[in-house]
Amino acid sequence: MTRFASLADLHAACLDLPCGNAEAAAQVGRREGTLTKPPRSLGRLEEAVSWLGLWQGRSPPRLDNVEILVFAGNHGVTAQGVSAYPAEVTAQMVANFAAGGAAINQLARVAGAELRVVALDLDHPTADFTVSPAMDEAEFLEAVIAGYEALSPEADLVVLGEMGIGNTTAASAISAALFGGGTRFAGHGTGLDDKGLKRKREVIDAGLARHRAILGDPLRVAAALGGRELAAVLGAALAARHLCIPVLLDGFVCTAAVAPLAKLHADALDHALAGHVSAEAGHRLLLEELGLPPLLDLGMRLGEGSGAAVAVLVLRAALACHTGMATFAEAHVSGKDA
Amino acid sequence: MTRFASLADLHAACLDLPCGNAEAAAQVGRREGTLTKPPRSLGRLEEAVSWLGLWQGRSPPRLDNVEILVFAGNHGVTAQGVSAYPAEVTAQMVANFAAGGAAINQLARVAGAELRVVALDLDHPTADFTVSPAMDEAEFLEAVIAGYEALSPEADLVVLGEMGIGNTTAASAISAALFGGGTRFAGHGTGLDDKGLKRKREVIDAGLARHRAILGDPLRVAAALGGRELAAVLGAALAARHLCIPVLLDGFVCTAAVAPLAKLHADALDHALAGHVSAEAGHRLLLEELGLPPLLDLGMRLGEGSGAAVAVLVLRAALACHTGMATFAEAHVSGKDA
Repeated sequence: MTRFASLADLHAACLDLPCGNAEAAAQVGRREGTLTKPPRSLGRLEEAVSWLGLWQGRSPPRLDNVEILVFAGNHGVTAQGVSAYPAEVTAQMVANFAAGGAAINQLARVAGAELRVVALDLDHPTADFTVSPAMDEAEFLEAVIAGYEALSPEADLVVLGEMGIGNTTAASAISAALFGGGTRFAGHGTGLDDKGLKRKREVIDAGLARHRAILGDPLRVAAALGGRELAAVLGAALAARHLCIPVLLDGFVCTAAVAPLAKLHADALDHALAGHVSAEAGHRLLLEELGLPPLLDLGMRLGEGSGAAVAVLVLRAALACHTGMATFAEAHVSGKDA
Repeated sequence: MTRFASLADLHAACLDLPCGNAEAAAQVGRREGTLTKPPRSLGRLEEAVSWLGLWQGRSPPRLDNVEILVFAGNHGVTAQGVSAYPAEVTAQMVANFAAGGAAINQLARVAGAELRVVALDLDHPTADFTVSPAMDEAEFLEAVIAGYEALSPEADLVVLGEMGIGNTTAASAISAALFGGGTRFAGHGTGLDDKGLKRKREVIDAGLARHRAILGDPLRVAAALGGRELAAVLGAALAARHLCIPVLLDGFVCTAAVAPLAKLHADALDHALAGHVSAEAGHRLLLEELGLPPLLDLGMRLGEGSGAAVAVLVLRAALACHTGMATFAEAHVSGKDA
């Protein structure tokens, strides 16, 4: 294991972040201004193309290779009854991904994206974080590296998603550890009833209390309260930044997974867009904390990268307008106040 | 002209509205409940498929023939300086549509939809509504019928859009006439400055004052304050209801165009979804008045059907999940609380 031999190595990599290519973004903006529409009338579609140009360092940007990476992990904390589904469902859903039967399979096809699923040691759940850190340093780094190395360097855009029964509990605990407010991030997850939600809140409080000594260290928070799939999402987002590949984030778990990066460096998620805001209550709060306005708000709460995969369609629409539209001069259309 | 020989005929047709097929919608819902995801976790995607089934009367619904109808018209009220663009731009943009250079051409291609543009007597703008009704009864009925007959009976979904320099002034005036509040619906349109917006408000007030005698009659409002492209959008939406074809509405002008239908019959827009909410300020207010929550909120304000065309992509994603996903039984995935 040569990459990130220690938390200190990883910490250093989290502070060494390339900037986007402002000239490419400016070139995108100059072309937008010549196209046959009132200035800025395509709203976030125009902003999205400029953002793709900024991070791809290319004008026009392209979406030839869109990759959806879904990481899966199991959570010892499920022993505490924090999910409406049994832990076996994680592996069953990974098999469903392989067979092409899940929502993300259909959405990847519609979005013209390649789906890759990385199952992380499903037979060995992380430890119950109410008892000990979910992962020790070596386990955490291994999962981060798995995510870091899963990304294809030739991707034009990467969608990050996850699957893991119990992982909204981990996401809620990480969010609270980083941004405070106890259990305000906890929600019904995949369909917990009110009694289950009360239990989930107690479990989060217990985790925050047990690990209070390390709550000021974002990477230790990710190791102690997170899970392998969250660590891998963090690793993949970091790799994308180092490779200058724009990222679409999916829902609450995915956003919580990358939140430690933003705590370590204020600009760390500039290469990421929130593909959507989930119906899982904590997601909207977390996006506000991170200053990430979502592209879509469709009441989705499935995970798997599903919301972000739908957002890929918006980016395709945006890019088609940018590259395909005629200019005022080409179309002989009079400009504003002409 | 056999169809709608008078406003009274049209009025009667606006009250004679078929209901959706509840059994088809229920069948969609039953399948949704068996698919490998927590119940309702695809949020508005699931609702949209059920709505397609309800109005197509078919389970599963389909999106094989998606039609985008863009109606274009010219407005005498532009003489009052209510737009940042000259009136010639309407015809220039129609030429741009024909040449494939506009935003809607690119979006139609990405959405897999057929685009049809219907230019309505562009050489003869409607009358300036501050002076007289924009259209007399015969002109109005002719435009409504043009829209009614433009719709292909075999369409699975129709997207309604419009183009017409000056038509946010007409839309603002119609909205105020139907829902009150004077000029609260007026916005910057394609890019009016503050002085221009003040002028636009004065023009709307003048129109409302001149036509105050007919403000209680929604169809007369559409004739007096609207425009040919708005009348055609109304006609196409009515035809879609009579043919049980679901409709995606685009932005402010399109929504104002169909608002008279909702004033005549409370359920008249049940077969319509708001594809998006525009950045044009009046649109959000109008959607609230109509009880139509938009699918998308992307800061778009272009018209042409552009926002609704992006929403077609969301419907395609939704339908792909509904038809392509495995059931819990097929995928051997354990259910909730198993």
